[in-house]
Amino acid sequence: MKKQKGIAVLGSTGSIGTSTLDVVRANKGRFKVVTLAAGKNIALLKKQIREFAPHFVSVTDEKSAEALSSDKSVKSLGVDIGFGTEGAKIAAAYKGVDMTVSAIVGFAGLIPTLHAIKAGKDIALANKEALVAAGPLVMNEVKRRGVSLIPVDSEHSAVFQCLKGHDTAEIERIILTASGGPFLRAPLSKLKSVTPGQALKHPNWEMGRRITIDSATMMNKGFEVIEAKWLFGVQNDKIDVVVHPESIVHSMVEYVDGSVVAQLSTSDMRGPISYALGFPGRIGKNCTPRLELGGRRLEFLTPEKRRFPCLTLAYEALEIGGTAPAVLNAADEVCVEAFLKKEIGFMDIARILAMVLGAHRAKTIKTLDDVLDADMWARDKAASLVK
Amino acid sequence: MKKQKGIAVLGSTGSIGTSTLDVVRANKGRFKVVTLAAGKNIALLKKQIREFAPHFVSVTDEKSAEALSSDKSVKSLGVDIGFGTEGAKIAAAYKGVDMTVSAIVGFAGLIPTLHAIKAGKDIALANKEALVAAGPLVMNEVKRRGVSLIPVDSEHSAVFQCLKGHDTAEIERIILTASGGPFLRAPLSKLKSVTPGQALKHPNWEMGRRITIDSATMMNKGFEVIEAKWLFGVQNDKIDVVVHPESIVHSMVEYVDGSVVAQLSTSDMRGPISYALGFPGRIGKNCTPRLELGGRRLEFLTPEKRRFPCLTLAYEALEIGGTAPAVLNAADEVCVEAFLKKEIGFMDIARILAMVLGAHRAKTIKTLDDVLDADMWARDKAASLVK
Repeated sequence: MKKQKGIAVLGSTGSIGTSTLDVVRANKGRFKVVTLAAGKNIALLKKQIREFAPHFVSVTDEKSAEALSSDKSVKSLGVDIGFGTEGAKIAAAYKGVDMTVSAIVGFAGLIPTLHAIKAGKDIALANKEALVAAGPLVMNEVKRRGVSLIPVDSEHSAVFQCLKGHDTAEIERIILTASGGPFLRAPLSKLKSVTPGQALKHPNWEMGRRITIDSATMMNKGFEVIEAKWLFGVQNDKIDVVVHPESIVHSMVEYVDGSVVAQLSTSDMRGPISYALGFPGRIGKNCTPRLELGGRRLEFLTPEKRRFPCLTLAYEALEIGGTAPAVLNAADEVCVEAFLKKEIGFMDIARILAMVLGAHRAKTIKTLDDVLDADMWARDKAASLVK
Repeated sequence: MKKQKGIAVLGSTGSIGTSTLDVVRANKGRFKVVTLAAGKNIALLKKQIREFAPHFVSVTDEKSAEALSSDKSVKSLGVDIGFGTEGAKIAAAYKGVDMTVSAIVGFAGLIPTLHAIKAGKDIALANKEALVAAGPLVMNEVKRRGVSLIPVDSEHSAVFQCLKGHDTAEIERIILTASGGPFLRAPLSKLKSVTPGQALKHPNWEMGRRITIDSATMMNKGFEVIEAKWLFGVQNDKIDVVVHPESIVHSMVEYVDGSVVAQLSTSDMRGPISYALGFPGRIGKNCTPRLELGGRRLEFLTPEKRRFPCLTLAYEALEIGGTAPAVLNAADEVCVEAFLKKEIGFMDIARILAMVLGAHRAKTIKTLDDVLDADMWARDKAASLVK
């Protein structure tokens, strides 16, 4: 019998985490959940512990850890419990883990991810900061340890699938698709007065609040351009974005011979997750609804620069290099928050981001502190500009 | 320096042949034309001989061979000349040939193709009869000799590209795209009275007369279903057809995990030809115009069985097996000819094909004679039904 693949699920109670466990549940002979790390949803975490019987579990703080330790059913399973960044690091690099699913959001997810890479674990990557803010750092470590870093968002998973069997030297262009968000066809003059409620209505995907606003501004697509650069090691000008409102084609690769290979599916994150878990094989039982093409119409549009200035900012940050993408990411988080609180308008997001990026003195990323410093600086700067 | 790849071009003055030579011309350091085989277009063949200086050339008959031999410029190049089936066989299996481009139409192309496989040459396959009529025979030989058989029509090349890096056990469905031809949206009641002139107007591709009519009836797509079966070794019910009027997506593979990988490009046969010539690598300079997706709309429709009865007949022939597909192919050639001569109506094509298929006693294909016998029987039967 083939050995079960040991999985660490960091962010197990979130959307990616629960989807990961859906795939594991449907393929129990193939995977073994070795560790879980979660945030505040202790009720769900307890259920997951009972179902998957991990060896180690980490929570956010000591209080939650104690609450969990005193739970009878958890106790009877003999699960070790940790908390905080240290706990997440232990979960990420635990003995018997073959692949770490990195789905803790923000910088809180970056540190255990780096730790898992250093411990030689393969990574299924959903955490954005790892590549947007700390791309050079993470990729150096990936190379040094010889681990596989497999993207689990739909666009990069699509590119990854389209690249299978190919040499990256054969890439002419990576073409990321973007839904265009809720304001794709709105009159440009109306964008200024868009409300948070309108911006939170994404046509195709249900996601968190920040990423939904980032979809509306296309800042999210800009971050994906930056991630693609690090994941696939291509030049900045070889990454393109095309608007595709139906979100059926998740991304494409154009090769040097003009042939374009595209990946299509329904919009269900269990697809990319199962691809990462099963790589290099594919997992049949992944709980996703199948795509029916008959009767569908797929549209493609060139993104308008005036409508989506955030996309241009991402290319600028990539061109500047070093800490610039980390600054863009941090400032965007502040701006989105301010927009949701109605402190700034929709089009102010890009305006403030451009100002922050313009004011930043980028430096080469040598350590995690370089990234954290840039992040902090950008948050302060953005916050002062919001006022 | 890497060794040049030796190429035999069978059918060098036809559309696939000249396109092949376009790709070779743009990549002279990479390929060497070792042999050419052509039909009646001696003027063009002479030009090709002067440009590519092959070692051996074959023509259709002795008279053409003599005319060619007496040509001063050809003589000065010291080219050996042959003719007929024997000449084509020599060209196909010549010393120094690494890959034989099989682009002679009809049974005249099947025999040298089989000969090249037996001689251990890799095959870039454009000849339809090889797989539609003689699939089991050809594939057995391919396996036995361990050669690569690479399709050069756009649909199978697309599937072949989408399968790169994958195990065929991971295939859920092969999805061939079909333009739907000129009558996709015509009222069903009007199909009976379609004229040859109307049927010869293909919306996207410029092709020969028979294949254009076969596109209008979708018999061509049916033959491609049969070819896909042999090329990719999947069960009959794992091959599907979807109508895609814009002919940008050339075909797709759905995997067991619900992920669909598609290949897209402009409609230029130099794309699939260059893919076959360069395999497993891709050739950048292949003279094809690049695909611009922005502003495009791609539509997909389920083919209507009543509109395209020939498609159903292909699945029936595949299900019957043995000589049945050869019979369908031969009978179709007779019916298309009769339709072009206005001896039968457009919808009579499928009606007669169904009758021929129904009257045929299929047998297992053991030798080429089994195929030729079935072919002959079908032509006679179809001809008698036309009258």
